[in-house]
Amino acid sequence: MGILEKMRVKSSGLKQAIVVRTDLEMGKGKIAAQAAHASLSAYLEAERTNPQDAEKWLEEGMKKVVLKVAGEKELFLYFQQAKDMGIPVEIIRDAGLTQIEGGSATCFGIGPAPSEDIDKVVGKLKLL
Amino acid sequence: MGILEKMRVKSSGLKQAIVVRTDLEMGKGKIAAQAAHASLSAYLEAERTNPQDAEKWLEEGMKKVVLKVAGEKELFLYFQQAKDMGIPVEIIRDAGLTQIEGGSATCFGIGPAPSEDIDKVVGKLKLL
Repeated sequence: MGILEKMRVKSSGLKQAIVVRTDLEMGKGKIAAQAAHASLSAYLEAERTNPQDAEKWLEEGMKKVVLKVAGEKELFLYFQQAKDMGIPVEIIRDAGLTQIEGGSATCFGIGPAPSEDIDKVVGKLKLL
Repeated sequence: MGILEKMRVKSSGLKQAIVVRTDLEMGKGKIAAQAAHASLSAYLEAERTNPQDAEKWLEEGMKKVVLKVAGEKELFLYFQQAKDMGIPVEIIRDAGLTQIEGGSATCFGIGPAPSEDIDKVVGKLKLL
């Protein structure tokens, strides 16, 4: 396989992104737990709605990136964009962080889905 | 349901633990990605070997804790204990962290499995 072909294969792969709020001042263990929750929830949603992509993503090694947003408003903006595009996405709420019923939204998981679709939604966000 | 009965139900639940090395000086985004990888990998292993527990854990809300160990030796010690006990466990290696073939082991996921079994292996470790 030539270099250009390899690049095309790479860019046509699947990935998952986990988008985390930075304003909640969660510690790294808390972030890890919330991100794991988001990753598994979004995977299960993908498995339900698009099992071929979910299976292929596992075979490809479960590529994932962890990105950041500044707050809740931004989190829901990107979450809604993913919803509108029909990409599997699951938002995570943590009851322990707040007295508000239902808990604070801490992060969401998007995909696995084709990398180019994921990038259309969260491609401009920075790595956490 | 009385308080004692509630406590018994709670303690008889299922959980997953993710055990992370602190000596690799990974940033919080890196830790989150590795932990998500461990969580999903261990879940898939549990689903394969013990689907009833895996399903029940999802229904219970995917309870998980993120714990820490000081280095690779300790990581493999607890990993082997879980293996010996027959608890679903998956170690995660990250090729990007090292030049060594196969990559550095960064963390492992253990469970979902009954909380008391998880605690027998990693119950004395501290939260990350």
